[in-house]
Amino acid sequence: MTPYEFRQTVRRGEFSGNTAGICEGYIQANLAIMPLKYANDFQKFCDANPKPCPVLAVSEPGSPALPTLGKDIDVRTDVPGFFIYRDGRFVGEERSLAHLWQNDFVVFAIGCSYSFEYILLRAGLPIRHLELGCGVPAYDTNFPNVPAGLFGGNLVVSMRPFKAADAIRAIEITSRHPNVHGSPVHFGDPAEIGIKDLNKADYSDRSEVRAGEFPVFWACGITPQVAIISARLPLGIGHAPGHMLVTDIPLSTIVSE
Amino acid sequence: MTPYEFRQTVRRGEFSGNTAGICEGYIQANLAIMPLKYANDFQKFCDANPKPCPVLAVSEPGSPALPTLGKDIDVRTDVPGFFIYRDGRFVGEERSLAHLWQNDFVVFAIGCSYSFEYILLRAGLPIRHLELGCGVPAYDTNFPNVPAGLFGGNLVVSMRPFKAADAIRAIEITSRHPNVHGSPVHFGDPAEIGIKDLNKADYSDRSEVRAGEFPVFWACGITPQVAIISARLPLGIGHAPGHMLVTDIPLSTIVSE
Repeated sequence: MTPYEFRQTVRRGEFSGNTAGICEGYIQANLAIMPLKYANDFQKFCDANPKPCPVLAVSEPGSPALPTLGKDIDVRTDVPGFFIYRDGRFVGEERSLAHLWQNDFVVFAIGCSYSFEYILLRAGLPIRHLELGCGVPAYDTNFPNVPAGLFGGNLVVSMRPFKAADAIRAIEITSRHPNVHGSPVHFGDPAEIGIKDLNKADYSDRSEVRAGEFPVFWACGITPQVAIISARLPLGIGHAPGHMLVTDIPLSTIVSE
Repeated sequence: MTPYEFRQTVRRGEFSGNTAGICEGYIQANLAIMPLKYANDFQKFCDANPKPCPVLAVSEPGSPALPTLGKDIDVRTDVPGFFIYRDGRFVGEERSLAHLWQNDFVVFAIGCSYSFEYILLRAGLPIRHLELGCGVPAYDTNFPNVPAGLFGGNLVVSMRPFKAADAIRAIEITSRHPNVHGSPVHFGDPAEIGIKDLNKADYSDRSEVRAGEFPVFWACGITPQVAIISARLPLGIGHAPGHMLVTDIPLSTIVSE
């Protein structure tokens, strides 16, 4: 199935699941959607925090299209799930934005770690949560984002465990891909970045770090949603975790090896 | 002083010390010198072990010149110290090769970590052994080199301690410089690569890893001398540790940032 065909399937309401493994070889994107009056500050926030928020594309105000990312994209219907935030609080999940759409909405598409996981797998590196068949464990940290306007909050990180030699390779590889979160922000002692218990992820699933492995932490695409919460926007929207926009852009355009 | 002027100083016998910090901003090189009949296998050994043995230049048989690395280089006299090996044993140090030179000698110039230390310092990363004013600690490992002909032995590594975030940055940076040993081969538990006691370096000086730091291990330019020993050549020569060939090649030609 092509990314276009997949998005049409979502648009028809025939798919509402996790997009992990969907249309392998194409870039997937996190989303952040908000009224135009906040968009300029949010762009500044992303520019100031490029590791968690690498911007891939921004829509015209009021437009649900992202023409540089794919044919006939309508983010209102082509993404399998959304998280809705009002006044800084999560108020529910939606499968479509048709009824919530505002003519002043701006859509930010942000790089997603599914892309670099594909690159790591191609390099022969094991990805624990994929082996376990669960989502990547993600954690709030005590590391403050660089604020911009109303947007702030702390960095959220995702964690993948590796032995030292594999961690070195993973750092090498991801450092070449700043559009999908780039190199890690930390490895080793979780307490150093304010994570109390590695076994209790703040977002998503179980974690498992085995003897001889280091937990390696990358900036996570949940961070922009934390920023939306911290800004207490009257209405802000993100993709539901794991429910990404699948773009027409081949990963080969960003994979240099 | 230009590298040419420095080499002339060495040639006149006026300098026989460590070349750390000499002619900053220019590539320095490790040396391996041996009879032509072994040179082909040694080249294969270097090709098979690019991290410890990144070849920068090879001389014509019998020639002590390396024209691609600098003006009027005569390695016999322009390098401040040599280690001499006979039949697989270290037999002494020399300040000149004038009396030992053979018309069948081939000179290999090999990338040196002094270059990447300069790059790391420029990036604002602290280098412990430079702060302490001593040589980099280096260790024999249990990690076998890929053998070629008579040449084999185990990898030698150098160690620099870093906090996690700095280690990530050091890995990112050195991975872009394969000509000067590239990315590390290991970090964390020394026992995993056969190092029993981090405080007892097999080569050079003291080591000091502080709380919250990881020892990070890079392939080391001592490895080719271990390979010469392992091959039991009737006569093989290396630079004395820390006593490098200073070339005319600016580091800016390999530093991308």
